[in-house]
Amino acid sequence: MRKLAGVIESQQFDQQTLNEIFRAAAEMETLHSSDLLRGKTMASLFYEPSTRTRMSFEAAMCRLGGQVISTENARQFSSKAKGESLEDSIRVISAYCDVIVLRYHKEGGASRAQQFSKVPVINAGDGRGQHPTQALLDLYTIIKAFGKISGLTIAMVGDLANGRTVRSLSYLLAKHYSDNKIVFVSPAQTRMGSDVKQYLTSCKIAWEETDDLKTVAPCSDVIYQTRVQRERFQDGDSAIYEQVIKDSERFNINSETLDSMKKNAIIMHPLPRVTEISYTVDSDPRARYFEQAENGLYVRMALLKMILAGY
Amino acid sequence: MRKLAGVIESQQFDQQTLNEIFRAAAEMETLHSSDLLRGKTMASLFYEPSTRTRMSFEAAMCRLGGQVISTENARQFSSKAKGESLEDSIRVISAYCDVIVLRYHKEGGASRAQQFSKVPVINAGDGRGQHPTQALLDLYTIIKAFGKISGLTIAMVGDLANGRTVRSLSYLLAKHYSDNKIVFVSPAQTRMGSDVKQYLTSCKIAWEETDDLKTVAPCSDVIYQTRVQRERFQDGDSAIYEQVIKDSERFNINSETLDSMKKNAIIMHPLPRVTEISYTVDSDPRARYFEQAENGLYVRMALLKMILAGY
Amino acid sequence: MRKLAGVIESQQFDQQTLNEIFRAAAEMETLHSSDLLRGKTMASLFYEPSTRTRMSFEAAMCRLGGQVISTENARQFSSKAKGESLEDSIRVISAYCDVIVLRYHKEGGASRAQQFSKVPVINAGDGRGQHPTQALLDLYTIIKAFGKISGLTIAMVGDLANGRTVRSLSYLLAKHYSDNKIVFVSPAQTRMGSDVKQYLTSCKIAWEETDDLKTVAPCSDVIYQTRVQRERFQDGDSAIYEQVIKDSERFNINSETLDSMKKNAIIMHPLPRVTEISYTVDSDPRARYFEQAENGLYVRMALLKMILAGY
Repeated sequence: MRKLAGVIESQQFDQQTLNEIFRAAAEMETLHSSDLLRGKTMASLFYEPSTRTRMSFEAAMCRLGGQVISTENARQFSSKAKGESLEDSIRVISAYCDVIVLRYHKEGGASRAQQFSKVPVINAGDGRGQHPTQALLDLYTIIKAFGKISGLTIAMVGDLANGRTVRSLSYLLAKHYSDNKIVFVSPAQTRMGSDVKQYLTSCKIAWEETDDLKTVAPCSDVIYQTRVQRERFQDGDSAIYEQVIKDSERFNINSETLDSMKKNAIIMHPLPRVTEISYTVDSDPRARYFEQAENGLYVRMALLKMILAGY
Repeated sequence: MRKLAGVIESQQFDQQTLNEIFRAAAEMETLHSSDLLRGKTMASLFYEPSTRTRMSFEAAMCRLGGQVISTENARQFSSKAKGESLEDSIRVISAYCDVIVLRYHKEGGASRAQQFSKVPVINAGDGRGQHPTQALLDLYTIIKAFGKISGLTIAMVGDLANGRTVRSLSYLLAKHYSDNKIVFVSPAQTRMGSDVKQYLTSCKIAWEETDDLKTVAPCSDVIYQTRVQRERFQDGDSAIYEQVIKDSERFNINSETLDSMKKNAIIMHPLPRVTEISYTVDSDPRARYFEQAENGLYVRMALLKMILAGY
Repeated sequence: MRKLAGVIESQQFDQQTLNEIFRAAAEMETLHSSDLLRGKTMASLFYEPSTRTRMSFEAAMCRLGGQVISTENARQFSSKAKGESLEDSIRVISAYCDVIVLRYHKEGGASRAQQFSKVPVINAGDGRGQHPTQALLDLYTIIKAFGKISGLTIAMVGDLANGRTVRSLSYLLAKHYSDNKIVFVSPAQTRMGSDVKQYLTSCKIAWEETDDLKTVAPCSDVIYQTRVQRERFQDGDSAIYEQVIKDSERFNINSETLDSMKKNAIIMHPLPRVTEISYTVDSDPRARYFEQAENGLYVRMALLKMILAGY
């Protein structure tokens, strides 16, 4: 019986472990509730709020029979306000639980935490760094739709410069699933970073870059839409934000886009969505973003099982 | 075996279902804890904080053996801040749980949520709209005191223009319990809305309106006191608020009021109370507002059972 | 079978009860999880946030099989904002749970709460007042290290004027453990209050006061370090705070201090720590502050057991 030691970054997984996770996630879909993790406690330690991610981890723990201690906004509420280091907080909290789910506002938080924690740490997002469970649920969603991740054309659309999810997904695809083509579709100002593009090239992954969704949509198997990161326009910049939203309109997915797409293609989105996918798209069977969010529950159940009960 | 489909508004219930709820609530009073809802998860999704209501729902779920995932202040903490619609949030969260308890800051929130939720929704208050579980616990409190809701004189006192609870209670009384008399007691500026009064008239419910609590108190079976809604005087208007509090003094319930009241009358209040009921009243057996709050636990246990396990 | 009636202040315990608590805490260290408190609900009612303390109580309850309803910041989030008294809040919440853990921002909160609560109250800190479970875990940490609390020289260092923990610990030592010597080490502006010093004298406890840690360190068995209370320098006073931090530097514990200390001495700290103990000290076996925090879990499990299940 092996146990996962924690989940810090997407690239920690080898192909076999990824397969194990997806196999376990599929099992979890058939399991409404269980006593597997009875007597185990998970600490949700969120230094910035993320209701969606936090609730999906907590629901995962509850379904497996475990218990949860939780903070929604540790940066505002905790000893952090008194000047305590992340390392000290982790040393203390890790004595109170069997696994820590950490959302941190700065890159590298999860990795620093793991060094000082007595228990496994799961990275639930560390600033502009990683969000590995999102990357896993993205892959799982593609596998569920196509049975494999091979021979696919995957278009990533929108704010590729700032979207953490599309970066992680690109890396994972490059590392483990070589036989696909990636198309980056974005306005000039939010292109995918050159580090990712260089990595794809070094892995011999076919990729293209364009600002024309209309020509890409008809030949894509996956359209992975992303949101303009409003958080970057916080203080008084709502005018600029509105302008960017307006400029991004031609990248929006709507009925017209649907008409041009392949019949068995899928549309993904990490959510929350604002205007970049029309509500009219929701009822189309190719719209998979809500299923994608639900898949997060099964992937997180799988990870908690593999960490706390083994596999 | 039937199941309740959710709780959106007070008027959804027919007389028979109300009776079932009150019967189940009475059973719940004798039950300290149970495994009935083991393996079930309730999501507390509060877009504005309400510790009292949230805790009573969560305690209800815990007592029945279920588990809870919770957010205290989704408006501040969640994807809402990133511009997500209520509908999208509900579609996602409803994949993580078996029932959603929703407090929303705008009228109609629960009803919109129910349309997009995969699981039943319980309305825990939607702005100036409904708070149906409060209305149910109010009725339950009157039934416990009198064995029936018939032949009673029910005085509603205070800020009737803004109090959600007295409005809902009036509607329910009019619809299901015809043989009572309602007396609205308030200063001129916070009279009960004419919509409610017209509805009472159309249902042939006897009602009166006055600003004199002294003459009403001696002939009332129920005095339902309410609070001046401080939230309406937030920004710098504390002077006006203090004035309203002062003007409302003659509607306060105190030892003098108690002396004039019937021996088996009861005093209710949805809480929180500020100055509108003197602390000296608390020890009088006719003061039922804390029992009323406790009844909320039993009514919510009953609803959760009827929704998740059936009846 | 006796039951603890609640935990309001350190001085409520007689010697025998203290011994029972420490015996039960030791048992709890060997128990990972249990069903002892199954069906019981604890309410965490924190009027000011304290993630560490709250999580350790909630983890304690979870490990014993109980359930938790919780608010992180009741002052901001609750009916308090609408003007409700603590007493009313407690009367309501205590109908929803089997025990209340209360953190209140004003002295005397727990004691006021206990008068109106239907269930036992545990004081998790009331402003500048008491924090009795911290005092208990401090004593427990000393007992674990030395097997007894007798014949020890205990140095309390730093901001003794404002530190709640060192005050409580001094009182408890004076009352129950007479055969020790206490040395107060602080800058002139943050000396231990004269009330505590007078009490020690009246109890015939040997004590000294100095501002020279260098001469005290070599002869101490326990060095109890404390933090400059940053909260006192909130509004724009960060310059003064930085100055105080700088002035306090000579009271910091570092490798040099370690070199001068006894081999079997221990270093304690209530945490969070800022700069007053160097990170290089953490790996020394005499550094016990993280173990001390962990001991809080066992002491709180012991208290919950003694309150809810008896002893």
